[in-house]
Amino acid sequence: MPSSAITFAKANEKRFLDELKDLLRIPSVSTLPENKPDIEKAAAFIAAELKRIGIEHVEIISTAGHPLVYGDWLHAPGKPTVLLYAHYDVQPAEPLDEWKSPPFEPTERNGNLYARGAVDDKGQLWMQVKAIESLMAADKKLPCNVRILFEGEEEVGGEAVEKFVHENPARLKSDVALVCDTELFAPELPTLCVGLRGLVYTEIEAKGAATDLHSGVYGGAAPNPLFALCQIINRLKDADGRITIPGFYDDWASPTDDELKAWKSLPFDEEHYRKTEVGSTVLTGEKDYPVLYRTWARPTLEVHGMPGGFTGTGAKTVIPAKASAKVSMRLVPNQDPDDIMEKFTKYVMSLAPKGIQLTVKVHSKGKAVVVSTDNDYIKAANKALHEVFSKQTVYIRSGGSIPIVGQFKNDLGIPTVMMGLGLPDDNIHAPNEKFHIANYYWGIESVIRFLSNLG
Amino acid sequence: MPSSAITFAKANEKRFLDELKDLLRIPSVSTLPENKPDIEKAAAFIAAELKRIGIEHVEIISTAGHPLVYGDWLHAPGKPTVLLYAHYDVQPAEPLDEWKSPPFEPTERNGNLYARGAVDDKGQLWMQVKAIESLMAADKKLPCNVRILFEGEEEVGGEAVEKFVHENPARLKSDVALVCDTELFAPELPTLCVGLRGLVYTEIEAKGAATDLHSGVYGGAAPNPLFALCQIINRLKDADGRITIPGFYDDWASPTDDELKAWKSLPFDEEHYRKTEVGSTVLTGEKDYPVLYRTWARPTLEVHGMPGGFTGTGAKTVIPAKASAKVSMRLVPNQDPDDIMEKFTKYVMSLAPKGIQLTVKVHSKGKAVVVSTDNDYIKAANKALHEVFSKQTVYIRSGGSIPIVGQFKNDLGIPTVMMGLGLPDDNIHAPNEKFHIANYYWGIESVIRFLSNLG
Repeated sequence: MPSSAITFAKANEKRFLDELKDLLRIPSVSTLPENKPDIEKAAAFIAAELKRIGIEHVEIISTAGHPLVYGDWLHAPGKPTVLLYAHYDVQPAEPLDEWKSPPFEPTERNGNLYARGAVDDKGQLWMQVKAIESLMAADKKLPCNVRILFEGEEEVGGEAVEKFVHENPARLKSDVALVCDTELFAPELPTLCVGLRGLVYTEIEAKGAATDLHSGVYGGAAPNPLFALCQIINRLKDADGRITIPGFYDDWASPTDDELKAWKSLPFDEEHYRKTEVGSTVLTGEKDYPVLYRTWARPTLEVHGMPGGFTGTGAKTVIPAKASAKVSMRLVPNQDPDDIMEKFTKYVMSLAPKGIQLTVKVHSKGKAVVVSTDNDYIKAANKALHEVFSKQTVYIRSGGSIPIVGQFKNDLGIPTVMMGLGLPDDNIHAPNEKFHIANYYWGIESVIRFLSNLG
Repeated sequence: MPSSAITFAKANEKRFLDELKDLLRIPSVSTLPENKPDIEKAAAFIAAELKRIGIEHVEIISTAGHPLVYGDWLHAPGKPTVLLYAHYDVQPAEPLDEWKSPPFEPTERNGNLYARGAVDDKGQLWMQVKAIESLMAADKKLPCNVRILFEGEEEVGGEAVEKFVHENPARLKSDVALVCDTELFAPELPTLCVGLRGLVYTEIEAKGAATDLHSGVYGGAAPNPLFALCQIINRLKDADGRITIPGFYDDWASPTDDELKAWKSLPFDEEHYRKTEVGSTVLTGEKDYPVLYRTWARPTLEVHGMPGGFTGTGAKTVIPAKASAKVSMRLVPNQDPDDIMEKFTKYVMSLAPKGIQLTVKVHSKGKAVVVSTDNDYIKAANKALHEVFSKQTVYIRSGGSIPIVGQFKNDLGIPTVMMGLGLPDDNIHAPNEKFHIANYYWGIESVIRFLSNLG
């Protein structure tokens, strides 16, 4: 019964929050080799809790990268099987000096919990775990069958989970996936995300001279890989953000007229968004498309960092022997990541200045996904949110990428419900990431109700 | 008598080398705040040695930045006064993984001494100190009057020495300066440097959004300062290296026909230089000018590093709130650094993409210098080198910058003899910096003979 599970959850809110803080104290940064032990500690922490709350088969699955945490409880014959997905790894916390409280010492301020991973995604992972604990504690059983698959590489491309899902469709056989890694469109506005952009994340490596050279002695004769990268990047998109890679827009599909109409009725104030979320003097991008269209349903290209040369304080007169640029593209439905990667690589190579050798690597890639709103699981999620918030649910897309959603569709043949309780100003991937604590509790209740609605 | 001083120097070669190693073990990196104690340790090490060898007035002069080491011996009435200049600070050693032996553990290999600062400039500073010690040990006096001025900020712009020289012309009253911070044109080819390029070293800081943003969620709406810097840098010079800042070439002066003719007769093999020094597939720069002309007497522009965003291993999908680019220009005679800085700043500001706020800072600046070959001090140095190497001395320029040389001319009204014993492949400012040990000893002898020739 959801009501007794919800009573249990409410009675245990303080403990649920304290446990989340313990999980957040583990700096499980997936991209940094030195945090490997923390990744393993986080996986063990979660697996132990799954066992404690009554999940039957719990397993830490070793992979070539970071471990997966798997669990299942399959004693509801005739009921659907839900695959709960979340990730326990986090982005690096840098730049550290911009955090108001330490990133790995969770701190409560103004009804929010501040920490790296608070909302992306440990807080939302723990929401799922606590919903199951509440249901199990109240009824000694779950309203439907449940499989759990938590990964530790989402922020670095999710290779291990990709391989595991691809190779184990029978073991993961389910009817629907529940991913809690998205956000509400606005505070207290129940939201389901039904579209995601895809991603191709690359690194362009440029080499010039055999060794770092003094810019006084060799300036005027030696190739400069960092300058070369500036030349190349400058030619990847125009001043309005339109990508200039030949053939890049060949296959893109626009949203439906119904979607575009619904987006126009969302409570979105461009000026408020510019001021409070982006905090820039103007918004940029393709002027012929509204902001939500640009960020949800148009492909974009960004440069994230350019390692090489001297990046410390002060001055060093070096012509670096090598440098690189981290460049990613967000993709929309119908664009194929492999095709885009091929076009990108070909174009970049064609731009190599003389004396510069280029290599283009791919860090991660995934297709865009759109989920139909016309299925029973989306309806069950809609009903759950309505029970919690007493408001009409809005359907949105996200400009971000969750490649596993595409894989659930392709490898397991199941749709995904993306029910996330983040907020637009939660500073994910940035300093001062937070989770609104009320949303954490509402999220637990929403998951309890969603699973109960399937029972 | 130079002969007895030279005998003393030869007898003490091993000790002279061991002492240099001790000095090189002190990581006196001037640009890094954490190395401040090492800077002070190096200054104290040198001052103690100056006292020990018989320099009368030795003083460590505190400044707003790193200390100066001053000394004088003025008991040769009627003889010229020579101002010996060198610097005891060094460039950062990064990238550390490219050093074959640790940068601050001097290591002998194949007749070379490998360490950060081996040749730039601690080895050449110690050459001067050991020349004075040898003269003093042999004769209990020096052949001419000597002032010593060693600084610890050369690699970061030399503000303290600039201020000190500017404010103390009477205290530093001399007839000529001897700077040992340059190189031989080729192994065992006696060389005097009579021209230096100037420098303006800037940092362009770009700001966009108020905080780092997720490139999925905000890609298509938020300005990207790193992309903006690529756009700007791309427009600072063309593909052939010609600088496109309006008015940049208004004032530049070309070398004389005699100089150009002399440069053509230097033993310079462009293909050998490309392969062994630069190590690139081609040489770059303005094709209408020969390599020595381009690197010695044409202005150039380089980007040295672009801090901002994510530069670690792997992937982070961040649109950085801010980023910056370290950009420097080498100047030639007649170009005024302040004028160039003004033109650079104005042009860069005019290139700011929408949504981006720019600030342009200057890290250091100095004029280009050309010294006349037609004076007695240059002739005395020429004679000293001939006595050591038994060959005709060549006059060259350097593409690098030693701003103090311009200041000696302007503030003290004296010419500078640039007699350096580095080699073109010494890897200054790069991993595996070295000093050819034979050159260290020849340098000591050259300084002994130069000072004796003035006596």
